[in-house]
Amino acid sequence: METGWHRSQSLGSAGLRLHVLLCSSLLLNALFIAQKFLRTSPPPTAPERLGDGLSWALQAAKEAEDVAAVDCSGHGSVFLDGVTGEYGRPGCECNSCFSGPDCSVRTPNCAADAQSGDPLFLEPYWMRHAAASTVVFSGWHRLSYITTDGHFNSVELDRQIRRLHRAVGNAVVDDKYLVFGTGSTHLINALVYALSPEGNAASPPASVVATVPYFAMYRSQTVMFDGREYRWDGTTAAWANNSSRNSTRDFIEFVISPNNPDSTLHKPVLTGSSAIVDHAYYWPHLTHIPAPADEDVMLFTTSKLSGHAGSRFGWALVRDEKVAKRAISYTEQSTVGTSRDTQLRVLKILEVILANLHGKEDIFAIGYDVMSSRWRRLNAVVSRSTRISLQKMPPQYCTYFNRIKEPSPSYAWVKCEWEEDDDCYETLLAAGIISLTGNVNEAGTRYTRLSLIKTQDDFDVLLERITEFVDAEKHGRAPAASSSM
Amino acid sequence: METGWHRSQSLGSAGLRLHVLLCSSLLLNALFIAQKFLRTSPPPTAPERLGDGLSWALQAAKEAEDVAAVDCSGHGSVFLDGVTGEYGRPGCECNSCFSGPDCSVRTPNCAADAQSGDPLFLEPYWMRHAAASTVVFSGWHRLSYITTDGHFNSVELDRQIRRLHRAVGNAVVDDKYLVFGTGSTHLINALVYALSPEGNAASPPASVVATVPYFAMYRSQTVMFDGREYRWDGTTAAWANNSSRNSTRDFIEFVISPNNPDSTLHKPVLTGSSAIVDHAYYWPHLTHIPAPADEDVMLFTTSKLSGHAGSRFGWALVRDEKVAKRAISYTEQSTVGTSRDTQLRVLKILEVILANLHGKEDIFAIGYDVMSSRWRRLNAVVSRSTRISLQKMPPQYCTYFNRIKEPSPSYAWVKCEWEEDDDCYETLLAAGIISLTGNVNEAGTRYTRLSLIKTQDDFDVLLERITEFVDAEKHGRAPAASSSM
Repeated sequence: METGWHRSQSLGSAGLRLHVLLCSSLLLNALFIAQKFLRTSPPPTAPERLGDGLSWALQAAKEAEDVAAVDCSGHGSVFLDGVTGEYGRPGCECNSCFSGPDCSVRTPNCAADAQSGDPLFLEPYWMRHAAASTVVFSGWHRLSYITTDGHFNSVELDRQIRRLHRAVGNAVVDDKYLVFGTGSTHLINALVYALSPEGNAASPPASVVATVPYFAMYRSQTVMFDGREYRWDGTTAAWANNSSRNSTRDFIEFVISPNNPDSTLHKPVLTGSSAIVDHAYYWPHLTHIPAPADEDVMLFTTSKLSGHAGSRFGWALVRDEKVAKRAISYTEQSTVGTSRDTQLRVLKILEVILANLHGKEDIFAIGYDVMSSRWRRLNAVVSRSTRISLQKMPPQYCTYFNRIKEPSPSYAWVKCEWEEDDDCYETLLAAGIISLTGNVNEAGTRYTRLSLIKTQDDFDVLLERITEFVDAEKHGRAPAASSSM
Repeated sequence: METGWHRSQSLGSAGLRLHVLLCSSLLLNALFIAQKFLRTSPPPTAPERLGDGLSWALQAAKEAEDVAAVDCSGHGSVFLDGVTGEYGRPGCECNSCFSGPDCSVRTPNCAADAQSGDPLFLEPYWMRHAAASTVVFSGWHRLSYITTDGHFNSVELDRQIRRLHRAVGNAVVDDKYLVFGTGSTHLINALVYALSPEGNAASPPASVVATVPYFAMYRSQTVMFDGREYRWDGTTAAWANNSSRNSTRDFIEFVISPNNPDSTLHKPVLTGSSAIVDHAYYWPHLTHIPAPADEDVMLFTTSKLSGHAGSRFGWALVRDEKVAKRAISYTEQSTVGTSRDTQLRVLKILEVILANLHGKEDIFAIGYDVMSSRWRRLNAVVSRSTRISLQKMPPQYCTYFNRIKEPSPSYAWVKCEWEEDDDCYETLLAAGIISLTGNVNEAGTRYTRLSLIKTQDDFDVLLERITEFVDAEKHGRAPAASSSM
């Protein structure tokens, strides 16, 4: 400025130039001030929008961002419907083994809870894709029972589900009917109903069966509903080579592939019977995809695809029109379809997944990296053990990634090898590890399931406890951690 | 400017003053520019918020407001998940009897569809309360199966439901367990299951019954599930004075009060049996409230409370712990609870309703004005008819409004009085009116139900057709409209 100042004194025509500069500068000030004024967004309750500002959606958007901005130390989250604390605002909900108002306190000697299949490993993905995956619901969104297909289902969601299967190559959809359910759980009995003989005393009830080890809910739900047209009839082993099966009785075989609990690919074992093939885990982050699945009746769910378990949304792909229509009428009679709110939210989630396929933010590539690294780290520890072993999973070619992949299973299927450990669940529990006993799927107490799809915190604590457990072997006793249980 | 220019020439120190002005002005510009720069909202994927602006929620909020801003001539709406038209954006979904890209074309001789109980009469209320009732869902909202009660239900939603019943005075909640369902429809069979003998060959199946005219889904759903522990056993008339009822057999009586179809208050008729009392319509906009309901097992739903039928949310209030726990285990086994997305949305809706009780925007006062005026206008027309009659509804005292109210029923229960009109549904259909025949609730074909809770457009067309129908009586023939059907 000093230099400029001397120059303006020495130059005669400086006044003019200064003045022009000043005037334009003042004009610029005025413009900025005016613009700043026009920028002010309208009051939240104003019905109409002004300029680029938001109107009625602003308040809720701020609420959502305020809640999301609360710091939970990376070990928890705040949600809009969280329990309101003393200040009337929801607080941090901490991951297991963390506590305190900001989830910063690590619980000492915390047991690792690896029991449930809560698919939280994808939470960081959705936080990274906040803008694209957010949905705003107006108060009047879809009040009606009736939505775009003239009944209870979204035409656009149907379209995106089919697009996704085609793009991923994990199921043939072109010759299938699509049935929506309140989670694939809702469709378990819907399909048993649809495949059972229509209620008449003439035909005997259908036998509902599965192969050990199987997903326990097939049995528990079938037994609970206890319809006259079907009955739970045990495991396929009893029927596979059984001539009595050549009767008038229908069989409905549940198959889950990849299998829950052991994560291997399965096929129906009873020939000439109806099969419900549950492909909840048949996505490229959780298994290799050898070919598109093309069974007559297939089940899928958002829970294991995108991690949206709480939304309760699943679907069935059904080849036969009559079976599909009976399953649809079941969902209409039992719940009048699925939540239209959830249908919109899932639509948005699938659009984000589709937009990123094969890109650097491919949910399957990112999910695969997480899950395969968890499996690798767990194996590295367990391979040092003579006391427990895991299912063997070789690398396999995946058509989606077009290469051979290391395994990335959702669950570790643990066998206790020492004779005295005849209840593997109890053995791990004594070491501060909560698992799901093989008893629930008739595999026996020698086996137990560890969930690998929960939060990173859950997995880290699990790996700690397993490491202590394996390290304790050489001392021929249960690990120190057990004393604190 | 001339003056200034001369002054700067004449005054020696003008250069200094100009310079100070210029500098401060330039500085101000620099500040504005800097501020403007900082103001620019971060790229949608940026995790953090700057200043008062929105970050990741902005894009979705704009999408929602853009869609809502589309003009459908007041005869339709655009929704985010609408079918995307040729321009890749969802278009207007028109009310019945309207068409065209902006729903401005009235369909000539359009039949009035008064068949379904689609509760769209409250849509204008939610449009008026846009800001308060909007909810923003982040992509990572409640991925988990587990929510705030440690299971599948929102603690805050439970609290608001109880607050609402206390504030309205339509149900005693303090000694009741709360069971969430995917619509109250989901809870029909959940409660039949919970009240039936636990599966064992010893005890005979429970008899599920209802009083004519009853809501048809009690029968159709019970028959569809066809569990071994219960069976549909007809109407109460067959059992009311029947000594055979003094057997070991349990009875489960469905009662809906106000009744669907005839909108009158009902009580159980079978003494000493379990009753499931459906209070879907027991809210002050649809009936008078003589006293808080206090039956052992009661059903409620958002569909008729707030109009959110598409969200699929309902709840049961259950006095007995064992019955409540069996019903809850049913909802867990059948669907793993209700959509957590819908639970958040319903929470917001109830908060808006509670905040406005007894104020000028009380949803019950506003809903009552709409429904009572529809009933009054329909009666004014039908009172001129000898051919059809409606249920008689006297004014009644309502504890919520603390005054005697004119009736505001959800349905008109029409009887055809002329001998030749032995199928009342067909008689009305010939006059361009689509109703729900009394056959479905065993009331016979002399009766048929007209829904009064749909859109204003639906009601206006209905009133037109009914007026033509009544005016045609004096000519002793069906109205002109019938020729165009």
